[in-house]
Amino acid sequence: MSQIKSAPVEHGFGVTDEVVARLEATPDPRLREIMQAAVRHLHAFATEVRLTDEEWFAGIMFLTATGQMCDDVRQEFILLSDTLGLSTLVDAMNHSHVEDLATDSTILGPFYVPESPWREFGESMVEFDCGGEPSILRGRVLDQQGAPIAGAVLDAWQNAANRFYAVQQPDVQPPTNLRGRYRTDADGRYEIRAVRPTDYPIPSDGPVGKLIKETGRHEWRAAHMHLKVSADGYEPLTTHVFDSGSAFLDSDTVFGVKRSLVGDFAMDSEGLRVCEFDFVLARQETSDA
Amino acid sequence: MSQIKSAPVEHGFGVTDEVVARLEATPDPRLREIMQAAVRHLHAFATEVRLTDEEWFAGIMFLTATGQMCDDVRQEFILLSDTLGLSTLVDAMNHSHVEDLATDSTILGPFYVPESPWREFGESMVEFDCGGEPSILRGRVLDQQGAPIAGAVLDAWQNAANRFYAVQQPDVQPPTNLRGRYRTDADGRYEIRAVRPTDYPIPSDGPVGKLIKETGRHEWRAAHMHLKVSADGYEPLTTHVFDSGSAFLDSDTVFGVKRSLVGDFAMDSEGLRVCEFDFVLARQETSDA
Repeated sequence: MSQIKSAPVEHGFGVTDEVVARLEATPDPRLREIMQAAVRHLHAFATEVRLTDEEWFAGIMFLTATGQMCDDVRQEFILLSDTLGLSTLVDAMNHSHVEDLATDSTILGPFYVPESPWREFGESMVEFDCGGEPSILRGRVLDQQGAPIAGAVLDAWQNAANRFYAVQQPDVQPPTNLRGRYRTDADGRYEIRAVRPTDYPIPSDGPVGKLIKETGRHEWRAAHMHLKVSADGYEPLTTHVFDSGSAFLDSDTVFGVKRSLVGDFAMDSEGLRVCEFDFVLARQETSDA
Repeated sequence: MSQIKSAPVEHGFGVTDEVVARLEATPDPRLREIMQAAVRHLHAFATEVRLTDEEWFAGIMFLTATGQMCDDVRQEFILLSDTLGLSTLVDAMNHSHVEDLATDSTILGPFYVPESPWREFGESMVEFDCGGEPSILRGRVLDQQGAPIAGAVLDAWQNAANRFYAVQQPDVQPPTNLRGRYRTDADGRYEIRAVRPTDYPIPSDGPVGKLIKETGRHEWRAAHMHLKVSADGYEPLTTHVFDSGSAFLDSDTVFGVKRSLVGDFAMDSEGLRVCEFDFVLARQETSDA
């Protein structure tokens, strides 16, 4: 049998409609919606740029390397999402606080480790000296009416002055260095002793670092303390307090900076860097009575 | 210092424009075009479905698992691309032969292994008996004017009747079972002895298999012999010859079937399944004289 030429429609880009139609059988309606949209946008991207075989394969290899860079303490796909602004977009869609007075959120990033040690009011998170200026971050956790929230939890983590988070340096820093969970007192006050935040580069030894270089971008994050703030009855908040002294407030490589989250780490009379910062939590919406 | 609310624009979805602007510094214009388009479509997808934090994280974990499923002989990202129809779309854009009479191409798939053993005209690729009906695939390799191409190479690979490719079963099949490279003779003829193709499921033990199930799809590929056909001065062709007896010609899970690529594996007088199939190669375009 010789070949019979097929109808042109088979050669065209009708494959998109075919895949979307095939996905119509997805039992879960939300998964169906997400998958059909993902396919349409993925195909629209490939069609718009007329992706070549070689470029397609380079993309396959890039994604493969990104997955293979991940382990228990390294999340290269989150880093990719962060550097492409996707994390900030998702955050903006789900945690917009423009009108409700609550503190803005920002991205989680790849370095959060759960179960940090509980620490006392004002206790230092420094377990290993990597240099840096001693600092205090303190203030209150409030509700949207300005009333203090007692017993709120602040789960804080930051990089050391040597630029690395403890999780990145298991052979140098103790695993809980510069990490800690604090509770607010009866007046809603908290106090975290640590080191002044320093700018740091995102990990550049993987595929994301390579992409950052190839796209002519720098790899620096603006100096910040990273925090999750939570209390019963309130929406959990993942945010940063940025240091107003950072050189990268306008060009943070993961698009995480919001002006409302910038604080001054001012020198006090005892030579300590002190930043006062209040967090305002939004009351949790109850979906039914 | 208390927080200062930032301007609404920072909270909006202006992050897309910011990322696209940042990518403007990409030195290579083609990489710039691809990355900017990728960001726009990725953000448009997330915005359209209002991706939640949990869904974003599920996506991160899915992509991570997909990368980690890959190894020397398993390419889960190609499988993902195949099952989402992206591979077929890229193939259609780059190898459309609607008007030029050349044989249609179709997807490479995840099971190709280079450097298959050279085999004689009519030699069998069966090195290990996994059952199945003995078969012959034979015909000619032609140019677009119908003239035979001598010395063309056909690099063939197929699954065994137990549904697996040799590369999937290193403990059962010899690595070169059902793989082989053949050359056309002076008349452009080739002859490959093997087993009649059988339908087979794509690997279902990874994240892609899980997604296929969750989207209510079956995991079957339509029975086929997989081939790369090449000759000096002609565009290399990656294609399949599908078995007209397959139950999945209309629902191949990777959208690879083209009607022009379906052949009959008819029973001959000696009880052998024989399929006659001619391949037509397109002359390579020379970009300059």
